[in-house]
Amino acid sequence: MDIESFRKQGKEVIDNICDYYQNLDQIPPMSVVKPGYLYKIIPHEPPEEPESFEDVQQDLQSKIMPGITHWQSGNFFGWFPSSNSFPSMIGDMYSNMLNIVGFNWICSPAVTELETMMTDWLGKLIGLDKRFLAVNPDGTEGQGGGSIQGSASEAIIVAMIAGREMTLDRHRGDNIEAEIDGMRHRLVAYFSDQTHCSGQKASNIIGCKACIIPSDEDYRLTGDALLDAIRRDKAAGLIPFFVCGTFGTTNTTAIDDLVGIADVAEAEKLWFHVDAAYAGSALSCPEFRPLASGIERADSFNFNTHKWMLISFECSVMWVADSTHLVNALSIQREYLPRVKGEKTFVKDYRNWQLPLGRRFGALKLWFMMRMHGATGIRANIREDVKQAKWLEEKLLEDGRFEIMAPVVFGLVVFRIKPAAITSTKILPIDECVTNKANIDLVKAIHADNRVFLVGTNIKGKDVVRVSIGSTIGTQQHVENLLDVVLQLTTSVIEQWS
Amino acid sequence: MDIESFRKQGKEVIDNICDYYQNLDQIPPMSVVKPGYLYKIIPHEPPEEPESFEDVQQDLQSKIMPGITHWQSGNFFGWFPSSNSFPSMIGDMYSNMLNIVGFNWICSPAVTELETMMTDWLGKLIGLDKRFLAVNPDGTEGQGGGSIQGSASEAIIVAMIAGREMTLDRHRGDNIEAEIDGMRHRLVAYFSDQTHCSGQKASNIIGCKACIIPSDEDYRLTGDALLDAIRRDKAAGLIPFFVCGTFGTTNTTAIDDLVGIADVAEAEKLWFHVDAAYAGSALSCPEFRPLASGIERADSFNFNTHKWMLISFECSVMWVADSTHLVNALSIQREYLPRVKGEKTFVKDYRNWQLPLGRRFGALKLWFMMRMHGATGIRANIREDVKQAKWLEEKLLEDGRFEIMAPVVFGLVVFRIKPAAITSTKILPIDECVTNKANIDLVKAIHADNRVFLVGTNIKGKDVVRVSIGSTIGTQQHVENLLDVVLQLTTSVIEQWS
Repeated sequence: MDIESFRKQGKEVIDNICDYYQNLDQIPPMSVVKPGYLYKIIPHEPPEEPESFEDVQQDLQSKIMPGITHWQSGNFFGWFPSSNSFPSMIGDMYSNMLNIVGFNWICSPAVTELETMMTDWLGKLIGLDKRFLAVNPDGTEGQGGGSIQGSASEAIIVAMIAGREMTLDRHRGDNIEAEIDGMRHRLVAYFSDQTHCSGQKASNIIGCKACIIPSDEDYRLTGDALLDAIRRDKAAGLIPFFVCGTFGTTNTTAIDDLVGIADVAEAEKLWFHVDAAYAGSALSCPEFRPLASGIERADSFNFNTHKWMLISFECSVMWVADSTHLVNALSIQREYLPRVKGEKTFVKDYRNWQLPLGRRFGALKLWFMMRMHGATGIRANIREDVKQAKWLEEKLLEDGRFEIMAPVVFGLVVFRIKPAAITSTKILPIDECVTNKANIDLVKAIHADNRVFLVGTNIKGKDVVRVSIGSTIGTQQHVENLLDVVLQLTTSVIEQWS
Repeated sequence: MDIESFRKQGKEVIDNICDYYQNLDQIPPMSVVKPGYLYKIIPHEPPEEPESFEDVQQDLQSKIMPGITHWQSGNFFGWFPSSNSFPSMIGDMYSNMLNIVGFNWICSPAVTELETMMTDWLGKLIGLDKRFLAVNPDGTEGQGGGSIQGSASEAIIVAMIAGREMTLDRHRGDNIEAEIDGMRHRLVAYFSDQTHCSGQKASNIIGCKACIIPSDEDYRLTGDALLDAIRRDKAAGLIPFFVCGTFGTTNTTAIDDLVGIADVAEAEKLWFHVDAAYAGSALSCPEFRPLASGIERADSFNFNTHKWMLISFECSVMWVADSTHLVNALSIQREYLPRVKGEKTFVKDYRNWQLPLGRRFGALKLWFMMRMHGATGIRANIREDVKQAKWLEEKLLEDGRFEIMAPVVFGLVVFRIKPAAITSTKILPIDECVTNKANIDLVKAIHADNRVFLVGTNIKGKDVVRVSIGSTIGTQQHVENLLDVVLQLTTSVIEQWS
């Protein structure tokens, strides 16, 4: 494909993208293909000779699209949003054009420097404490700073590695290296039963123990529960080194007792990481910041702009208050990886802030998005989603058949058909087990109906329905349609049971 | 930015991309900005109100582009190529359009199934042993398969985690879990001094020991050297569990003694990973496959399509012969992550094959590229680069002033001004130290000249010049220009010394 063909066909792709977004309301949000569908309809070997753009394009429509669940649809309310925007897409097109492997400053100074500046922009946008910023107001280097990770999972791994380094380093003064080595398998990290599963996975990856602490009745990890667990583990000879607090859990968007956790982490010298993967975006609106009290005392903080801040997957931004332990743990020097001597602030080797070596020009889409939406546009997008979520909560309560399972704070509404709404002549009594079955049936009915898409989850034994509002092109009308579907199918489900 | 604005401005972006590629020969390949340049010319806060596309576009040209080193230029010969193609870019545009977070099959069946099929296509394209393929010829599930990782670094981490699981699992029969835990810090992984630094970094990340074995005079890790190291470590109470062989090292594209390593790995029950990050692409040409003997006995194999196979960064494909230990080590179940019951082959949960949870629709760009280039196009691209590299080697030898430091097998030419070519009335004798300085000066002179870009490296104490041929738009003419620059500046450097 030569330049002039791309000039023509690239524009066709732009048209196709626009048409896709224009027609999303006409497409059922969920793919209904059966496992193995694609194997039956595409060849099992790569073609020997080149095929035309038109042929691939046609197969994209006829063979790939049926296997797509449409995360960008206004009718998609599954998991958390994967919000996108045209400015972000443009940024990524340019990033692809340049196709830089930005493992250090020399690879392309703009890649490093724009990342430093965009993570500072973003930190300021969400009101992050200045200890997390890379550049001080006088232009000198801060101790901390942000960097773009692939995902919140990688951010937790990186934070745990920094925390491990911090803890082992503290013991290095008094011990020989072999003793330090012997401490490694006694290291323990703390999560709650509502922490994202990536915490436990990260523990498996770095090879430490994970202690999963039961959350309280509001699904929160508390400082008191953390302290109890630490005391028990220390008595058993373990070495606590890390705790993850969550600002907006996956199941209910609960907010952990961040102040209580910070107190314990300080006293016990734990690395305190805050995972705000989803809800961090809301901090762009000042009215949400009181909820985030305690974050200013964390060692690291992370949120996914690709969830709820109009950035295409993947772009997870992680800040540390002090990069020393992080860089010590992750830096490797080689002769083919030169380092520029100069002002440290602007020649950050971000490869030492992350797991891999290479990195995309990820800051470019942040730059396009933040400039073309402006802070007001970003805030308006969040506020509109929260307004729609509150509206949905109100209507569900008005209906009388539902209970809301957790406070609606952001864009997530978690509810279930309440036991009292289920009447049955066949099954008695209407206990939690029956209620669970009815709610699982409701989710199944919504999937079968396929006008809207959402997923269920299970919170402490209760099967519930989970509506996540945040599609970039979603409107109040989409939420009203969702409500219609839910009310109608709830009636069917209850009828089937009665 | 609404749909119709994107329809218009997205097409402008396509034009800009085409113009960029058309004009690359007119632009010096290396950025010459000074650290901190960007901080001085862009605001330190995000804008409150939205700005226009035109304004951002203009700033991209005037403020970002000066900070870019042009990896796509035909005059870029640095590190390893970051080869790209228009079909890959189109695939990525569609991936961005759909913006799916594909953590399991249900998120979009096509994301999982196309990945299974494209990694099999790619495996067949490079002649990989059938034990690495996901689907058997009869359509049933294989034990192995490929998956898309971000980078070769992540592939090594993942392989090491699988290897650790395999080794600890073998001890589980005879030991209680606490004893298994106590083994963790005695685990040791093997690399050579020419293995990519990501091996040592991965060891730091997963918290095991790394043993760096000296390579032989041809820069290869041999089975004998590995066996010696293992015997020594076992005598010291360590537990060998992993070895990384390299097919095409970073410094010289040396190929380790893969057969010898496979023998030792089998006998000692080590996980054998082959890192072919750069040179793996060459295996699309059958004439290179005899060099890869031994790979068929590896436990895992990886190469970066984003290096030399016309795919934009990042897309590193990793195959395992048996996914059991990998999935056991990396799978975490949660109620919001449902799994489809069905034909296992096509509902792979690739999140259990990698470090993060979420994943892009990466297979789409592989599909566009492999179809629109065809196997013949992919092979032609490799063969043309190798031909240019051999031509350059020949011309450098003809000149008489250079020595070639390692066999030119792929697209990399590593050479230096030889001691005998340096005459000096000021400095005597012309020893290795002087020769090193002359060659460092040559690299500096090439950077200052900035008609072409390359980097130097140091191989076992010798400073050398490294020319990596593989730019997608690079031609024989670009290599001829490079030769002119090298010859001319070598004369200047030698004159300065004499």
